[in-house]
Amino acid sequence: MFVAPAAGLKPAPLRAGSRVAMVAASGPPLAERLAYGLEVLQDWGLEVDVLSSCSAPAEPFEYLAGTDAARAEDLTTALTDPSYEAVFLAKGGYGAQRTLEHLDWADLAARQPTPRHVVGFSDVTAIQEGALRHLGWASLHAAMPATTYFSMPRAVGSLWAQLFKPESVGVLHFADAVPVVDGVAEGVVVGGCATLIASSLATDTGLSARGAILFLEDVDEELFRLDRVFTHLRRSGYLDGVRGILTGSFEECGDPALVQKLLVDRFGDLGVPVLTGADIGHGVALQALPIGLTARLDTSQRELAFV
Amino acid sequence: MFVAPAAGLKPAPLRAGSRVAMVAASGPPLAERLAYGLEVLQDWGLEVDVLSSCSAPAEPFEYLAGTDAARAEDLTTALTDPSYEAVFLAKGGYGAQRTLEHLDWADLAARQPTPRHVVGFSDVTAIQEGALRHLGWASLHAAMPATTYFSMPRAVGSLWAQLFKPESVGVLHFADAVPVVDGVAEGVVVGGCATLIASSLATDTGLSARGAILFLEDVDEELFRLDRVFTHLRRSGYLDGVRGILTGSFEECGDPALVQKLLVDRFGDLGVPVLTGADIGHGVALQALPIGLTARLDTSQRELAFV
Repeated sequence: MFVAPAAGLKPAPLRAGSRVAMVAASGPPLAERLAYGLEVLQDWGLEVDVLSSCSAPAEPFEYLAGTDAARAEDLTTALTDPSYEAVFLAKGGYGAQRTLEHLDWADLAARQPTPRHVVGFSDVTAIQEGALRHLGWASLHAAMPATTYFSMPRAVGSLWAQLFKPESVGVLHFADAVPVVDGVAEGVVVGGCATLIASSLATDTGLSARGAILFLEDVDEELFRLDRVFTHLRRSGYLDGVRGILTGSFEECGDPALVQKLLVDRFGDLGVPVLTGADIGHGVALQALPIGLTARLDTSQRELAFV
Repeated sequence: MFVAPAAGLKPAPLRAGSRVAMVAASGPPLAERLAYGLEVLQDWGLEVDVLSSCSAPAEPFEYLAGTDAARAEDLTTALTDPSYEAVFLAKGGYGAQRTLEHLDWADLAARQPTPRHVVGFSDVTAIQEGALRHLGWASLHAAMPATTYFSMPRAVGSLWAQLFKPESVGVLHFADAVPVVDGVAEGVVVGGCATLIASSLATDTGLSARGAILFLEDVDEELFRLDRVFTHLRRSGYLDGVRGILTGSFEECGDPALVQKLLVDRFGDLGVPVLTGADIGHGVALQALPIGLTARLDTSQRELAFV
């Protein structure tokens, strides 16, 4: 049932004039945040199509950007229309997994779309797993246009660099990271928001971390909830064969010292290098992280080098 | 990976003088609540062994009743010691899945222990799934001794009846239940706390709902979290072949009207009978519900009849 990740295709860099799509596959974006994010993308010289999900009424539940079928239709367009070189997920929240229920991956793959950047994090983790599994595409775990992260120069600059000058950001440094288990490990980078990884286990979009460098972060989960998620990853076999673990921020997850203790408790015994405290995730000016590409994690250098 | 449930063995009824074990496999019980619950069990004429996990220090994390290994040892003793006719889980909380990581089911099954009542709900759902899957035992989704539910006469009376006079409670009536999809369905009753079911998916203790009547309840989950759990059950294939759905309380899960709308949204399209609003679960004087026995759900009668 678990599918080990293979290295994904890296889309071509963007340039001024590149056409991109903006989709709301999770929660409904705030109009003013969306407008701000759109302006940033346009300042980069991108031609942005803002698809209708970005302004859909928040229904049938207020946390959703319109109906599942309509979100899935937008996402399908964004992933397959030959004119798009990137797909920006407007925001996270919740709803991507409902959207995925309505996505026809076989049809998508049959259309043989050109690989394109799929940009987002948090709830978008579920989509990025699916894109790697079914389309063989790498993606970018990075700030989303209709969120406050798009007002953080470092987060936006890091995303711009990965999109337009990827050769300039082939090595990510984590100055404040804390090695828990020392070592060097190489593998395909997978992961994202831990809760999202766990709640796609045993679905048609989930992967395993076999042979991979697993990145995990999360937001607004009490300690016992994080514990439950990590324990699910352990017990399900998702972690079997993992080569290394990199963790980012755990924002609003309680006492950081206890979160750190939990990370040591749940991942310190796996016999692989573990580096915690990367500036990637919620609540920080997150560095953009390529997902689905092969990288080398070096805990003593506190870095992840794409190879 | 998913194991469809087979009907479990029903343990012999208890009587005055029956010897039982009390175990804390999840969170640490409060001493005064434990004492009260113990008194109730002793008033029933039971000889209660309170195992050491019930008074273990709350470590390595305050939500755990001592170490995983020690809890697993107590649970193993409780499930296998030939002198016990029932196992009462002192309370829920979180931690059962950590305990299960340390349980050796093959060893347990090899000892061929006599079926015994396994009593609890909430976090205990994970243990009850494992007991049905690996030992073939039915269990009781019911009030736990070291919780406030043991001060609710209806909850305690209903548990007593299932333990001592099961023939008197072969049909459960749900006066206030609301049929969402009408019909009659028969199958093995599985389920419990929805979040626990989802977070054991694809583990060695999880089941599927194939051929089953699925019972679900939950506590303290925002609406989008419930949605995520239900959507995980849908997407994973857990619900494939389910015969009927019965839902209980959703305590502290937000506006009950929205929860009901969500239940209709996530389960109303499965083509099987759905009955919501049973007085089983958190926040109510819960009726004791046998798990792992075959029953007939009849939405128009608002009842579950064990056959």
